[in-house]
Amino acid sequence: MSTSRSQERLQESLSLVIQLLEKQRVIEALTHKQESKNKELVESLVHRQNLALLQRKLRDLHPADLAHIIEALPQEDRLVVWAELEPHCAAQVLLEASRSVRDFLVEATERGRLLELLGQLDPDDLAYISESIDPEVVAEVYHSLDAREQSLFQRTMAYPDDAVGHLMSPELVWVRDTSDMGGALEDVRRRGELPPHTETLFVVDARHVLRGALSLKDLLLRPPSAPVSAVMSTDVVSFTPLDPAADAARAFERYDLIAAPVVDERGKLVGRLTVDVMMDFLHRQAQSEALRRAGLSGEEDYFAPAWTSAKNRWLWLLVNLLTAFVASRVIGLFESTIQDLVALAALMPIVASVGGNTGNQTVALMIRGLALDRINRANTRHLLLKELSVGLMNGAVWGTAVGLAAAALYGSLALGAVMAAAILLNLVVAAMVGCAVPLVLHRLGRDPAQGSSVLLTFTTDSMGFFIFLGLARAFLVV
Amino acid sequence: MSTSRSQERLQESLSLVIQLLEKQRVIEALTHKQESKNKELVESLVHRQNLALLQRKLRDLHPADLAHIIEALPQEDRLVVWAELEPHCAAQVLLEASRSVRDFLVEATERGRLLELLGQLDPDDLAYISESIDPEVVAEVYHSLDAREQSLFQRTMAYPDDAVGHLMSPELVWVRDTSDMGGALEDVRRRGELPPHTETLFVVDARHVLRGALSLKDLLLRPPSAPVSAVMSTDVVSFTPLDPAADAARAFERYDLIAAPVVDERGKLVGRLTVDVMMDFLHRQAQSEALRRAGLSGEEDYFAPAWTSAKNRWLWLLVNLLTAFVASRVIGLFESTIQDLVALAALMPIVASVGGNTGNQTVALMIRGLALDRINRANTRHLLLKELSVGLMNGAVWGTAVGLAAAALYGSLALGAVMAAAILLNLVVAAMVGCAVPLVLHRLGRDPAQGSSVLLTFTTDSMGFFIFLGLARAFLVV
Repeated sequence: MSTSRSQERLQESLSLVIQLLEKQRVIEALTHKQESKNKELVESLVHRQNLALLQRKLRDLHPADLAHIIEALPQEDRLVVWAELEPHCAAQVLLEASRSVRDFLVEATERGRLLELLGQLDPDDLAYISESIDPEVVAEVYHSLDAREQSLFQRTMAYPDDAVGHLMSPELVWVRDTSDMGGALEDVRRRGELPPHTETLFVVDARHVLRGALSLKDLLLRPPSAPVSAVMSTDVVSFTPLDPAADAARAFERYDLIAAPVVDERGKLVGRLTVDVMMDFLHRQAQSEALRRAGLSGEEDYFAPAWTSAKNRWLWLLVNLLTAFVASRVIGLFESTIQDLVALAALMPIVASVGGNTGNQTVALMIRGLALDRINRANTRHLLLKELSVGLMNGAVWGTAVGLAAAALYGSLALGAVMAAAILLNLVVAAMVGCAVPLVLHRLGRDPAQGSSVLLTFTTDSMGFFIFLGLARAFLVV
Repeated sequence: MSTSRSQERLQESLSLVIQLLEKQRVIEALTHKQESKNKELVESLVHRQNLALLQRKLRDLHPADLAHIIEALPQEDRLVVWAELEPHCAAQVLLEASRSVRDFLVEATERGRLLELLGQLDPDDLAYISESIDPEVVAEVYHSLDAREQSLFQRTMAYPDDAVGHLMSPELVWVRDTSDMGGALEDVRRRGELPPHTETLFVVDARHVLRGALSLKDLLLRPPSAPVSAVMSTDVVSFTPLDPAADAARAFERYDLIAAPVVDERGKLVGRLTVDVMMDFLHRQAQSEALRRAGLSGEEDYFAPAWTSAKNRWLWLLVNLLTAFVASRVIGLFESTIQDLVALAALMPIVASVGGNTGNQTVALMIRGLALDRINRANTRHLLLKELSVGLMNGAVWGTAVGLAAAALYGSLALGAVMAAAILLNLVVAAMVGCAVPLVLHRLGRDPAQGSSVLLTFTTDSMGFFIFLGLARAFLVV
């Protein structure tokens, strides 16, 4: 048996695959160089041997591991591995891969093989990845499904991809509330198979309305004559297909759920959500949030061509350039002041930078608090006041420190005082804007992770320059 | 029965608790103002009625929900809710709360009640939160445990808090490999209870070495005479107590695990990891990462006093001030150049800002890639070259655009050319440093999320000013 340290094993697999691919490339390069027929034959043998080794290694791996390995490979290597996968396995890899890599693999697969792969998928899984695939191909696969599968596919497609309905699975086991343990056990035995993550069976009435949940544990431990309705738990957390997946994921986390029923508006059981799907969802969310905050799409393929990546970053670059230009024009207003006292040019970035950094701390806290539902109408005022106090305190303490340093450096107490006042004011601006921007974006139904930082930095830069140079013109240069 | 929309229900509970607390405060304020004995009595009755309502509401809530509500309340309100909780429930809330809020609650609880609460916890849970608690109190609770519980406590404490051993639970069910289905079922029935998240039973040999896993499903579906060793799955993902919890969490995600065995170095079964603990771990990690990137400790309590929060942010502020000072000194080197051409003062922040923003995109990508194991020795060079190409392309395109704008604005083609060149060079610097800093921190075994951004912004600011003003001095002013 293999009790395996999974992480190490995966790292080793990745290294081995990379080695084999490396060898493959060397062999191919040699084959290219060598002219003699004879040598070519030998190389080609080695080539085949190596490929067989690669195939064997790949066959042993879990689809999730294969997806991981493919994501970590440069694009040409991905295609070598991808071509070696069996259709069934390749179909699972498509499910496990991230969106951008899935798009790349689909793009690189010729139509015949793609049809074969997609034919292997359950209809709800097919719906899940259908956005990556040419609608014509999806339609062709759809027509090959039987009526029940077609309706499953359509039901999944009917919900937005961040709703419970899009992520739920139709695989579920239910028993009747009028049954007893013996009858329920009989039902389960007759099915012969239970879907994964079945720790509880759902209990429904004659109208298929959810009435409770019966754990396998009780099915094992209770006497056969015990009625289901007496043993089942009635306090079941359930979802509707239109509930946001993010809310469901949080409920899974909070109540330690493994699987939960999905019911329609009349309470009828229509599907099942499982913890693995929720974990994937949370994982994708966490992953994309960090990238979205940096102005990336959250789906960037590490091994996409440089040109594609460069274009992905243009929108953000453009926004940044425009805001930087505005800040630059603010400075432009004070060119004569700077001409009179050139030290201002050296000191002004400090004011802007301190404001930007502390403001971004506030932004990070607010985004996190909003995502965790820690921030609500009832406590917003409290938080605003608190951040304002923090800004005032830090502004007073550190403004004074920097002011003294500036005064010492340039031998001007007045310059130091202007510097201190500008830092204090800009930290207050930063605290206010850092609170307000994520809150407003959130109220408008937008994602505060995307955009808050740009707006914040824009404000603290422009205001930092304006406050500092404005104070300097008023008090120093005249 | 209650099939409940959990998220809405939680929001409603929170609002209700806040309302009740609000009322409580109004009543108290009134009681303070009113002098007459009579009135006081009436108020006190209303007061008690309101409190009873609050207590009833709190009693209905899941500990995870209570923890959530407590986290979302200002500190004085937290204490009102906290005081109303039954010891058993309060103990669970301590487990569910975030570190900073747990510390706050422990701090606010008098010793007698704290001892009572902690006595309710399982020894492994006690160990899990023991860092928040006065060692003397922990010792007192420890001495009240029986020998088996003491050894469990000690075993959990023996592992670092990001290791599997610290998170595993001793609650597990195993059957012998020489048993058959009937015998295994008998074993389970004799226990009378199964721990939560038991979808499989672990199979061990006479020396308690893990041999495989037997699903409850098989126990239900297979004939009683089938031998365990023939039915069990032998391909079990297991962990050792010293494995990093982050690796285990990734394996849970990748292989859709519900529970996994933990074995010692001789393969003996010592504990069990469950998906709910892993989800909590991932959640805490994701939560703290975003804050750590902004220079916060990742555990900041939203309702801590402003003074505490202000101090939490000092280290970062200080680092930021020091780096800003260095950048400012770089500008100081070129004061005479700026004096000659004051437009430079207005344009230089653009160069720095564009470098900082695109560099931080690279940093975000690298941190994410490192966290997901997408980046390794084999593909580092490829990624470096790619980011460099992206920097060159974007530098050429956007440098030219900004150069032309600057040339038009100030009517100097030479100034535009210097601007374009400076942006191109600074984007290349940003790409290199943005790749290198997270990689180096990671190789040194440090957390790249903490520190990468500061170092990057420091470099792109200083280098941005240096390159731009240096080019200007060389080509424009002479």
